Parts: sequence; structure tokens; C-alpha cells
Amino acid sequence: MKIGILGTGIVGNTIGSKLVKLGHEVKMGSRTADNEKGKEFAKANGSKASHGTFADAAKFGEVIFNCTSGNVSLNVLQLAGAANMKGKILIDVSNPLDFSKGMPPILTPSLSNTTSVGEAIQKAFPDVHVVKTFNTMNTNLMVDPSLLKGEHDVFISGNDEAAKTTVKEMLGWFGWKLDNIIDLGDITGSRGVEMILPLWIRLWGIFQSPNFNFKIVR
Amino acid sequence: MKIGILGTGIVGNTIGSKLVKLGHEVKMGSRTADNEKGKEFAKANGSKASHGTFADAAKFGEVIFNCTSGNVSLNVLQLAGAANMKGKILIDVSNPLDFSKGMPPILTPSLSNTTSVGEAIQKAFPDVHVVKTFNTMNTNLMVDPSLLKGEHDVFISGNDEAAKTTVKEMLGWFGWKLDNIIDLGDITGSRGVEMILPLWIRLWGIFQSPNFNFKIVR
Repeated sequence: MKIGILGTGIVGNTIGSKLVKLGHEVKMGSRTADNEKGKEFAKANGSKASHGTFADAAKFGEVIFNCTSGNVSLNVLQLAGAANMKGKILIDVSNPLDFSKGMPPILTPSLSNTTSVGEAIQKAFPDVHVVKTFNTMNTNLMVDPSLLKGEHDVFISGNDEAAKTTVKEMLGWFGWKLDNIIDLGDITGSRGVEMILPLWIRLWGIFQSPNFNFKIVR
Repeated sequence: MKIGILGTGIVGNTIGSKLVKLGHEVKMGSRTADNEKGKEFAKANGSKASHGTFADAAKFGEVIFNCTSGNVSLNVLQLAGAANMKGKILIDVSNPLDFSKGMPPILTPSLSNTTSVGEAIQKAFPDVHVVKTFNTMNTNLMVDPSLLKGEHDVFISGNDEAAKTTVKEMLGWFGWKLDNIIDLGDITGSRGVEMILPLWIRLWGIFQSPNFNFKIVR
């Protein structure tokens, strides 16, 4: 599959590199076509990896990952272009963390509690199938859940059932079993999963390690 | 032990009744000494159960449980009286859920994100040892974690180590194993655990049952 990755950070790099290893073609997008991190990604991952602008990556991908910070995601997606994403699946991995007031970060009030990044993106881009997932764990676990012993869960939310079915299959590529994928329904489900970030960050500090995840026990 | 319970709802009733069954003396407090629910609690639970005002319950308890809605807790605790709680442990089980705008509830902005009910109580009552726990699960699980198969966790936060040690022992009365008690450090840990309520409520709707809990897998 051709996949566009928006964002050149650790999340975009980890997901993008893994997808290349799995045999997919990945174009990483950033604000400028000559972004150094984009170049490094392409160089490090061989002929199936490339880089370009956000618009280039959005146009390239059959499926697009939003791996930017939640506070800039709407701006990034404007640059990516609604026309380049129309009818496609946008997997939103972002969180609206505001570090401007120091640690711990707060959630950006305009993007939490009564809404979420996932909902805001879906509202701004009604012709895109936004699927929220992956935002509740460290990026190394996203692409390899077997790093933890024992069962643990990933959440998924989105308005389009077919899009969610495709994303669940993609989660399977990374090793996620269907039993560990919790479908929270429509995109308003992204609100709750973004709001657990303060607990996640607290646990990271307590454990001195990001290698943990949530499991819902029933 | 003599225990005061603030609040006559299902949480106060469940915890209070269980404590009586475990052999403790419990006084349930409410706004008025002749509150019908308070009377019912006392009648249903025998000679070790009694009721009175918030102040009566706070004065009676060596340990006090705040089982009121997070949005009224500060007011309730003013009625309970700082002098009646001075130097005691206050176990805060509350959440700042605002149902006034319909379902799903939001978190009261002035009591979330940059603060929490637990933190606000500790700030308002500096001579009380506030310990936040139990707020992340249905009340039947608080007093009987064995209702779920498999391991699952309870979080605890508070500034006073000795108070937390006592509360951990009390959690043991209900069946909680030390391995399943996650100590989040000081009372600012209450912020994250209150902010997972939107996900908890979403899961309740998806599962059509409140009989689930969080487990942190490492």
C-alpha cells in the first residue's frame, strides 16, 4: 500500500520505518520538501521510502497518518490539502498536549473536554475518513505490541465502519490481535482517549519508562 | 475503626455497608441530620451504622470518605468543617463530572486539566491528609475487586506517605493486593485519574456494563 506520513518526529519515523519493513511504500511529509529529517528518513529506509511536502505525502498516500502534534494538526492538514485527502483514511495518532506552561503538559482547552483533535479534524475535513487510534501508548508499542508481556489494548474510533475495518487490518500488520482492539464507536470516542494522556504522562514519570500500556479488564 | 462517610449516594452506601460488614463503625453524613437516605443506611446496616450531618460524620470518623459529587465536594467539606477533619485522612473518591449540558458529561473546567478535585480539596484543607483513590471504577469493584477475573489496578495519590500507607491497608480490607495498587505520588496525581472518566464513561456505554477496570501492563 502507498502510505503518507505527516510529521517527521519519532512517531512518524517509527511508524513509517516499520511500514517500509513490511513492504509498503511510504512518503514522509513536512513543511518543506528539503526538510533534513525527511531526507534522513528516506535515506535510512531505502527505495520504498521518500519524502516531500505535507501535500506531497497526502497526495501519495492511499492511507495517511497524522503524526504531528495535536496543536498544529489542523494547520498541517490545511497544508496537506483537503483535495489530496478526499475519500481517504486519515489515521490520527495525535494528542493536544500543551507544554508551554511547563511540565506536566496540560491539554489544550479548545481541543479537549468538549471536543478533541480527532473530532476537530473530522469537522474541518468532512470528506476524509478520520480514524483515531494509537495515541494512548509509546510509539515502540504501536508497531510492536509483543514488546510487553501479557495482553494489552489499543482503542479505535471513527465514523466510517469500512475505514475502521481497514485500519483494524492495518493494526494487525503491526501484530495487534482483534481481541485487543477496542472499538469506541464514532469519532467522538477520541475525546476520552486523548484525555487519558495526563495519566499516561504521570505513569511514565512514576515508572521511569514509557514501556507500559492500558488493558481493559472485564 | 470509626469511619465517616460524606454522601448518601450509591458510592457512599456501598463503601459504608461493606465497612460495617467488615466490623467497623460507620456514620453517614448528609446536609440534614434527618436525611431519609441516611436513615435508611443506618436502619439497613445494624447497630454499627449511624447517620448525621456532614459535620457529625466528619467528627465521628478517624478516617473520612468523600463520596459526594466532585462539583459539590468543596462545599460539602466546608459544611463538614476543617476542625472536624484536622490531622485526619480524607479519602477522596469523587469526580468533577458536569451533566448539566447533557450526555456525555464533561469535566468541570475549573476542576480539571490544570487542577483536580483532589488537589483543590488539599489546597482548601491543608491540615487534612487527602488521599485520592477508587474514582476510576464502578463502586461494586471498589469493595470487591474479585468480581473481575484477572488482575486489575487501583490508583492512589496523596502528599502524606503515612496516610497513603494506611489507605493501602484499608484497600487490602476490600481485597486489593499491594501489587495492584499503583502509587502515583503526591496529590497532583489525582489530575490524571479524574481525567480518565470520559474514557470510562465511553467504555461503559460500549460494553453496556460498568463491570470493567483498567490494568496497567508493563
